[in-house]
Amino acid sequence: MSSNWEQLAADKRKRLAKTIPQQWRIREVPGNDSVIDYPRTAGILSKRELEITELCASQLVSNLASNSLSAVEVTLAFCKRTAIAQQLTNCVHEFFPEAAFSQAKELEEYFAKHGKPVGPLHGLPVSLKNQLRGYETSMGYISWLGKYDKEDSVMTHLLRKAGAIFYVKTSVPQTVLVCETVNNIIGTTTNPRNRNWSCGGSSGGEGALLAMRGSVLGVGTDSGGSIRVPAAFNSMYGLRSSHGRLPYAKMANSMEGQETTVHSVVGPMGHSVENLRLFVQAVLEQEPWKFDSKVIPMPWRQSEADMVRAKIQTGGLTIGVFNFDCNVLPHPPVLRGIGIAVAALNRNGHKVVPWKPYKHNHGCELMNRVWAADASTDPIGIKELWEIQTERWAYQNEYLEKWREAEDQLGTVLDAIIAPVAPAAAVRHGRFGYSFLINLLDFISVVVLVGFAEAGIDRRNQVYVLVSELDKAMQEEYDPQAYHGAPVAVQVIGRRLSEEKTLAVAKELANSLGRKEAVSLVLNSRL
Amino acid sequence: MSSNWEQLAADKRKRLAKTIPQQWRIREVPGNDSVIDYPRTAGILSKRELEITELCASQLVSNLASNSLSAVEVTLAFCKRTAIAQQLTNCVHEFFPEAAFSQAKELEEYFAKHGKPVGPLHGLPVSLKNQLRGYETSMGYISWLGKYDKEDSVMTHLLRKAGAIFYVKTSVPQTVLVCETVNNIIGTTTNPRNRNWSCGGSSGGEGALLAMRGSVLGVGTDSGGSIRVPAAFNSMYGLRSSHGRLPYAKMANSMEGQETTVHSVVGPMGHSVENLRLFVQAVLEQEPWKFDSKVIPMPWRQSEADMVRAKIQTGGLTIGVFNFDCNVLPHPPVLRGIGIAVAALNRNGHKVVPWKPYKHNHGCELMNRVWAADASTDPIGIKELWEIQTERWAYQNEYLEKWREAEDQLGTVLDAIIAPVAPAAAVRHGRFGYSFLINLLDFISVVVLVGFAEAGIDRRNQVYVLVSELDKAMQEEYDPQAYHGAPVAVQVIGRRLSEEKTLAVAKELANSLGRKEAVSLVLNSRL
Repeated sequence: MSSNWEQLAADKRKRLAKTIPQQWRIREVPGNDSVIDYPRTAGILSKRELEITELCASQLVSNLASNSLSAVEVTLAFCKRTAIAQQLTNCVHEFFPEAAFSQAKELEEYFAKHGKPVGPLHGLPVSLKNQLRGYETSMGYISWLGKYDKEDSVMTHLLRKAGAIFYVKTSVPQTVLVCETVNNIIGTTTNPRNRNWSCGGSSGGEGALLAMRGSVLGVGTDSGGSIRVPAAFNSMYGLRSSHGRLPYAKMANSMEGQETTVHSVVGPMGHSVENLRLFVQAVLEQEPWKFDSKVIPMPWRQSEADMVRAKIQTGGLTIGVFNFDCNVLPHPPVLRGIGIAVAALNRNGHKVVPWKPYKHNHGCELMNRVWAADASTDPIGIKELWEIQTERWAYQNEYLEKWREAEDQLGTVLDAIIAPVAPAAAVRHGRFGYSFLINLLDFISVVVLVGFAEAGIDRRNQVYVLVSELDKAMQEEYDPQAYHGAPVAVQVIGRRLSEEKTLAVAKELANSLGRKEAVSLVLNSRL
Repeated sequence: MSSNWEQLAADKRKRLAKTIPQQWRIREVPGNDSVIDYPRTAGILSKRELEITELCASQLVSNLASNSLSAVEVTLAFCKRTAIAQQLTNCVHEFFPEAAFSQAKELEEYFAKHGKPVGPLHGLPVSLKNQLRGYETSMGYISWLGKYDKEDSVMTHLLRKAGAIFYVKTSVPQTVLVCETVNNIIGTTTNPRNRNWSCGGSSGGEGALLAMRGSVLGVGTDSGGSIRVPAAFNSMYGLRSSHGRLPYAKMANSMEGQETTVHSVVGPMGHSVENLRLFVQAVLEQEPWKFDSKVIPMPWRQSEADMVRAKIQTGGLTIGVFNFDCNVLPHPPVLRGIGIAVAALNRNGHKVVPWKPYKHNHGCELMNRVWAADASTDPIGIKELWEIQTERWAYQNEYLEKWREAEDQLGTVLDAIIAPVAPAAAVRHGRFGYSFLINLLDFISVVVLVGFAEAGIDRRNQVYVLVSELDKAMQEEYDPQAYHGAPVAVQVIGRRLSEEKTLAVAKELANSLGRKEAVSLVLNSRL
């Protein structure tokens, strides 16, 4: 039997390799740790194609909508760059450029006939985590190989309606329940910034592909950090929306049916907060609540974003911050990252106040009980499940109470909370209490890049009292040299269903950090 | 041991009886089947007090807000009438007029000091189903007696903030999971229109008290019809909102923690659709999403109601209708009730189209599997629960698809669907597939009174093919004489979270039926 699964996996790898045409093959795979700049010198993309792939999603849709870029040429550029990314980082499960080209041609015909784009994402290539249905969805399970989807996920269907072009499905760890990306079919996906590092997970293929600019906007899912961790580890931006805001129906999943206890959510990963906004707004315009019963009929609320903007222009925002959940002290680069974010916000006139983490240990324990619920040796009973659900609700309400209390004390609205995404900046193992508590609370989180680890600055923490075994392990694990250059990100946390507001706050943080969030509509070279 | 529980129940009844002062006691309990008009001649309420209790909630809050009625006198009037209702229909679990008077006095002091009402429900007595926390909450369980709540439910807390006065908690069946109202503590609650009839359940005490006008606005809960059935059986109006619209946190419940599979929701019962609107809007103004993590941050959307109004004034609404779920044919009065509603809508220029029930049997079966989930002899496993949840989601999405298909075929929006609330008009046993499918779908439902059963018109159905055992039992159960005079209601069904729209459609139905929905602000006699 064991040769059987190995054969199935080998067959899949062979089929996958074949999808890359000869002219997109790399002659010699570089030996460098970092491959992030390789596409520029690989000789596979033309100058113009390189430029196209280095535009952001907002710039691309503008150019596509005005017909100054064609859907076919954009698709070709991203397919080429994806082929390179795959050969260097092993980030792809499915690659189907031919299908993408026919979609692109149809969209061009539509444009020629109607003189306008089909929807807000007209002609934009969008990468999909290999959990969204359409084509072959294995999710890293060998036993799922060879089963072709008969139906799209609702998200795929609506993105298609909005004009998105599909060309690739990215790698995931088997089960999609861990924060690394490795499975028995294609092996390990690596981090393009340093192939010794993890790309994070479970939307790890997305993270790596986006960092390589083989994609400009990708779809991930997050039930414990699976969008945020790979976004952070690959210096990308990611949104963990609240359950019920974006359509999850008809996607593949592990622990199917579990989603009522701790919700896995679907959301965008991209190169800027602005691009995340573009995605959310485009999907909401398709009225997903008419297709997925779990989606709330809540169109994009521009007024919520405008309110943030108005506050920025008047008194400034009020933002809570914590860098230690009282369980595991983050590594020095992460602690410094929080400091960078706070300093940037202060510089821009915002008020940053300490946030006291409220019983995070208790929350993490509840999460762990949910994850272990269907353990094959000893699944929990239905009454225990109901107990967990009751405790979770109580905890969520207590957290809201803390938020209200803080606002009462401050005498003003607390606009968001800034916190680490994970205790480490990229790399190696680790637990993800910083990210997965947000899932338990069903809060919003936007990952924002703040800088990179520097061996010369980010010395080991001088910790005299270790608060837990995990804390001890985490502190011991830190090595300034190994982490040098790793991206450091923070998450901007908002209350449930505050996508518009929290994206606006995250954008202001990115602006405060000097990251360009404004959209330029002109390509560098003449098109 | 058996004497013990009997003693506990007897003690409770004694404590309850003591809460009614001597001057509010009925000298001689009437022998009539109907006691609904008794308060007018009981000699306990003054003429003015009778008038006050016969105003609707909207009229009361207007008069209270302009200080032309005082909170104390309104409270006194409703306490007196409640005392009568309790002696005649046994609809009360907790009665606390003294606490109500001190609340009323505080509100009057507030008004005197600030010259304005404390909130949108300033001084309005609101009755609570004995499931909302505050005072003693037994929910019909003898073992819960004597435990006094240390904390309000979130709903109680927010209604209090809005200015509501609490004076009574109404009867429920033990468990609150059935559609009759009987428990081992106080026995059976009867229908004031005919004490041989059931008042419905589980918010049956609310139904009876409202019909007696001992309350003008009450709070019920509904996980399978528990607001709608007693509203219908007592000729009242009721709203089954979607899960997440109104706060349920910190309420007592059976099967606690189950609420993620099929949601029990909280909602208003009252004397008009307009009064239901008043309640929802008042609660949403308190921002319940900051107190209960399950509540969606969605303020009252007047624009949704306005859109319905605009359609009414232009082309009219498009409304689906069905009167048979292909499992149990409703009794003749219910079938005629649907006909009355359709005729009224047609008369007012609206288009009514047949709606084909979609796999309602399948839906009912899923519901039954959920209800039986924690059966003590054979509880289901967690994997089966997840299977049910997955099937439910699929079914919900299919139902949405049917709705979209209908709209595509009609070429217009389907504004609502009209259907029976239950297969029988008031009275006796019966299954409630018509109501509880709405819970599975998490749709909105507003109960609207359409008429009364008439023995001379509502002859037995001539049914040649009985489609199920339940159908057979139901047809045999019908007796034109026994049902004579029973209220007949329909439910107006809207998609998930369409409270504003569906209330507006229901209001138009009530208007079309000639029921006065406009609010008169003037009392009949000089105040």
